[in-house]
Amino acid sequence: MNTENTAKKDERNLYLKNEDLDAAVEKYLALLSFDATEQQCHFLAVTEAQGWVTKEPVFARISSPYYNASAMDGICVDAMAMIDVDERHPKILVKEKDFNFVDTGDVITDPYNAVIMIEDVVIKDDKQVSINGPVALWQHVRPIGEDIVAGELIIPAFHCIRPMDIGALLAGGITEIEVIERPKVGIIPTGTELVEVGEHMSVGKIIDSNTHMFAGLVKEYGGQPNRYPAVRDDYDLIKKAIAKAADENDVVLISAGSSAGTEDYTRKLIEELGEVVVHGVAIKPGKPVVLGIIRGKPVIGIPGYPVSAYFVFESFVKPIILAFNHQTVNKGLTIKAVLSKRLMSSLKYLEFVRMKCGRVNDTFVATPLDRGAGVTMSLVNADGILKIPKNVEGYDAGEVVEIVLMRPQEEIENTLVSIGSHDVLMDIVANIIHKNRKIMSLSSTHVGSLGGIMAIKKGECHIAPVHLLDEETGVYNCSYLKRYLEKEGAVLIKGVKRTQGMMIPKGNPKNIRGIEDLTRDDISFVNRQRGSGTRVLLDFLLKKNAIESATILGYTREMNTHMMVASAVKSGSCDVGMGVLSAANMMDLDFIPIGDEEYDFIVLKKNLNDPRVQTFISVLKSPEFAEALNQLGGYGFENPGEIVEV
Amino acid sequence: MNTENTAKKDERNLYLKNEDLDAAVEKYLALLSFDATEQQCHFLAVTEAQGWVTKEPVFARISSPYYNASAMDGICVDAMAMIDVDERHPKILVKEKDFNFVDTGDVITDPYNAVIMIEDVVIKDDKQVSINGPVALWQHVRPIGEDIVAGELIIPAFHCIRPMDIGALLAGGITEIEVIERPKVGIIPTGTELVEVGEHMSVGKIIDSNTHMFAGLVKEYGGQPNRYPAVRDDYDLIKKAIAKAADENDVVLISAGSSAGTEDYTRKLIEELGEVVVHGVAIKPGKPVVLGIIRGKPVIGIPGYPVSAYFVFESFVKPIILAFNHQTVNKGLTIKAVLSKRLMSSLKYLEFVRMKCGRVNDTFVATPLDRGAGVTMSLVNADGILKIPKNVEGYDAGEVVEIVLMRPQEEIENTLVSIGSHDVLMDIVANIIHKNRKIMSLSSTHVGSLGGIMAIKKGECHIAPVHLLDEETGVYNCSYLKRYLEKEGAVLIKGVKRTQGMMIPKGNPKNIRGIEDLTRDDISFVNRQRGSGTRVLLDFLLKKNAIESATILGYTREMNTHMMVASAVKSGSCDVGMGVLSAANMMDLDFIPIGDEEYDFIVLKKNLNDPRVQTFISVLKSPEFAEALNQLGGYGFENPGEIVEV
Repeated sequence: MNTENTAKKDERNLYLKNEDLDAAVEKYLALLSFDATEQQCHFLAVTEAQGWVTKEPVFARISSPYYNASAMDGICVDAMAMIDVDERHPKILVKEKDFNFVDTGDVITDPYNAVIMIEDVVIKDDKQVSINGPVALWQHVRPIGEDIVAGELIIPAFHCIRPMDIGALLAGGITEIEVIERPKVGIIPTGTELVEVGEHMSVGKIIDSNTHMFAGLVKEYGGQPNRYPAVRDDYDLIKKAIAKAADENDVVLISAGSSAGTEDYTRKLIEELGEVVVHGVAIKPGKPVVLGIIRGKPVIGIPGYPVSAYFVFESFVKPIILAFNHQTVNKGLTIKAVLSKRLMSSLKYLEFVRMKCGRVNDTFVATPLDRGAGVTMSLVNADGILKIPKNVEGYDAGEVVEIVLMRPQEEIENTLVSIGSHDVLMDIVANIIHKNRKIMSLSSTHVGSLGGIMAIKKGECHIAPVHLLDEETGVYNCSYLKRYLEKEGAVLIKGVKRTQGMMIPKGNPKNIRGIEDLTRDDISFVNRQRGSGTRVLLDFLLKKNAIESATILGYTREMNTHMMVASAVKSGSCDVGMGVLSAANMMDLDFIPIGDEEYDFIVLKKNLNDPRVQTFISVLKSPEFAEALNQLGGYGFENPGEIVEV
Repeated sequence: MNTENTAKKDERNLYLKNEDLDAAVEKYLALLSFDATEQQCHFLAVTEAQGWVTKEPVFARISSPYYNASAMDGICVDAMAMIDVDERHPKILVKEKDFNFVDTGDVITDPYNAVIMIEDVVIKDDKQVSINGPVALWQHVRPIGEDIVAGELIIPAFHCIRPMDIGALLAGGITEIEVIERPKVGIIPTGTELVEVGEHMSVGKIIDSNTHMFAGLVKEYGGQPNRYPAVRDDYDLIKKAIAKAADENDVVLISAGSSAGTEDYTRKLIEELGEVVVHGVAIKPGKPVVLGIIRGKPVIGIPGYPVSAYFVFESFVKPIILAFNHQTVNKGLTIKAVLSKRLMSSLKYLEFVRMKCGRVNDTFVATPLDRGAGVTMSLVNADGILKIPKNVEGYDAGEVVEIVLMRPQEEIENTLVSIGSHDVLMDIVANIIHKNRKIMSLSSTHVGSLGGIMAIKKGECHIAPVHLLDEETGVYNCSYLKRYLEKEGAVLIKGVKRTQGMMIPKGNPKNIRGIEDLTRDDISFVNRQRGSGTRVLLDFLLKKNAIESATILGYTREMNTHMMVASAVKSGSCDVGMGVLSAANMMDLDFIPIGDEEYDFIVLKKNLNDPRVQTFISVLKSPEFAEALNQLGGYGFENPGEIVEV
């Protein structure tokens, strides 16, 4: 908890600049040196050299084959002695005088200079064979050096060694090779609030996960990570740590403290120890990056939010590690995809938006994931990145955009796209699919039931999980299909019955009994987002009980999933929220049931035979699925996977 | 050297089948089990888990953030106390009573429930601030679990762990994770002729390079290579080695001995120890593969030719290693390219042709590399693979074909494509480019000078190295441009003068004095391929000296490069060959000069400003290039890089 006085506040680095990404990268890299003649190098056995980068071109020391070798199984002969042979004048050859048997790879040497395939030889007896045609000089003989000639270039300098290069190098007589030392990247976690992995966790503490992600990325791009113990927010301690790391490494990363807060020391410290080249780049997330140089070495202050940290690493640290290895940054694979919803972005920043992608009816569709800089899961779940350039205010739904892929395109093509309401059972289905049907995966985006119907209508998903109560009839889902998807022709895949209710802390400390208690002054509520089935249910209940939403404290505080509501109740940041029994069970909360609802899946008739949809249905029908639901509790089901025409 | 009697010959496995690749893979994999419940697994620290595959889905143990946290630098307040505040009714807040300063990430806890950004706060003095607007409940507060909610799925089962997964797992309170043991792949080199890496090399010996390539590929695809010492061609020894390897590994590879020769024991041995599923697949190279099963474990006999070995590994071993890791084989990236020359293929085989690719004037052009199964360098140099299906007899020049890439597309786009005559200086240029201009690379294909002119004409390359003597004028290169490229508009980039002559063994044992000696009975010659400048020169000299080519022993024996001719002379497989002085020097041969020739580069005028061509010219002009040529010897040069209009 921060209790500094205002004097300290004056030390904020309020004046971050907003440099363009490309210009910042170019300016920074131009000031750094990656001269191979100054780099550390060492010799390595070729058999251990995979993934290392050559310092010099490598030329073959010996030829391969090392001798003239038979290219066939057969007999070796002297071609000059066969000149007159033809079908009318066959010739008998005597073993060890006129010929010898050879297998592929055997030496062909004086007096022999050609090979006849065994299929073309008539074997007379143990000692004699007959041939009935002439033989070309050096026929079926692999000449010395056919593969590699001594002195020939095998691989150039600055080449990253692959398995086939190892084969060629060994065949060319090379056993040791000089490689460029991988750059050492020192990683300094900073922050008084950090706990190390495995240490006791408590409120106010943060597990230092970013620096371990950095270590992984450093390895992936060809560097040696060198992670230091976390340093608390103390100016002098951090200064010492940076100076030490700059001594011991080729690159230094300082995790957190790069912004303009009271405890953001990175900029000032780099200025003291060296020079700050850039502070603040026009990217989002990732703006408050510090690019500095201490004694010629790149020292980078990386913001603490995990997603910001990732994009800063990719934008600045990756090119530096690759430059040390004399490799170039490739742009990565892209697909063109239709944007499933409008996406606005600040004109002031280049924004990296994490996207879920899928192919529905031969079109790639891309849906943005959570854009918060703190949402690591948006990185984990992303199929690709949409870059919205600076000075572009965003894209409309339906526009075709370019996505840089984070997963192979084939995996995306084999993904069942679900957009709609959230339930933990989608995780269960995803996992059963993943375990049993290796080919396919499930991508599940949570935008609420009505959002799901819209996505089906726009052809953005294969299935839409929904639980929508018809206020007039009291029946779930069917009337919505009729109302919104009559023209498209949709059916329902039956899912589960689940119990909706009010989630409250264990023991019900505030003695909540029902919906009418929500208006109490001492009760703070947390709501679900508009368009979610749970919100529709709540509003139905409020109407039925003649309760004004404005009288409910927290009615406007929206969360996107059952689990987030349960988590808010669990944490004490509210007293009650609406959600399903399974979520309450998972969070060990008490629960006041309100009623059972039906959670089904909409699919267009024309997509019903899509193999991905069929796999999904078979999972719903599987005993594994039933068992998992029973374990979780809070679900009823009769015929999951049944098709219901409306 | 093979000296078996004919009785032994009867043991050849003459009856290889010719199964289709896809059918063979499917049949084989269907007989193998990759059931996760039977696989070895172990726990690993999450920080060490990069690249490993999860056994079970992983759910978050704790929420992240673990508490309600400030999302901004600013002050935390009780929103309920600010309801009436607006610009006309600002409110003074007292520190530690009404508010506290917070940095991003600080805990927000009772009585505070909202954060006001520091920019919206007027600081009065050390103890007081003023605000002039209302505050929404939980404004600028990151709720518990905004990133990850306890109980939420972080990554599914069978997921290969990436750096960002490590970050998310740690943030979700996971420190250890159960991963699937990487399959152990036993690799048995067989062959009496093998020498181990680093051992003394002699005629008849082969360095065992394939199994080291296998070890690298096993690592790359997620297995643990376990390479055994080489076993000589002894039935019982190999049997013992296979039995032991099948005990100790999940997969066994037997290198060489998979075909139908006398010493090809693999098939018989697998039959004895287990079962042979397939012997012989309709692929080229790679046909004589043996797919067997011993005690439920895949045991694969891999042919000894390096390129065959590679494609057999990719076709059969890779999918098995991936299946153990529950990963799927991706087809890989492809480009559409125009074929630069006709490519015929057997109807009986699916053929894998290694291709060089480049982009010339917005079109990708693909040129086949050497198709021999023994030519490892065709793998090292390949940009991609063209698969010619079974029952397709090939493709015509100009046809658009699909190439599966082995290098990133961007690298191919940044490649200067040279097709034409061979000289070792092309290696030197390639290396200087590689070292100084990281962005660009040089792809050099050797088809002779006339082939180079044709390639320029068809738009298949950027430059064509040529050395073509005009028999009438005695002038090099210029007249050929006029004759063949008048319409296209080409110029010459001046290269070097080089000395052509006859390469002979050190000491000239057969006392060769000039071109007239080629007709001698005791002299065997080796020629260059038709279309090469050296061949043109030879034929010119023969004509001039009134020598019939039929009188020269070895006139029809063709080799593709100077170095291969030099190598043939060096090895004693011929007495003399034509080539350049630099090649003779590199091979330590004697040399009878015949004359100087000009080795220049043709480029179309319209491509002269292509940045790749400009880079090439700047290398020719560089002091590094001159120095390298001087070291090599045998070259003269005046103004390399000069443009000559014809």
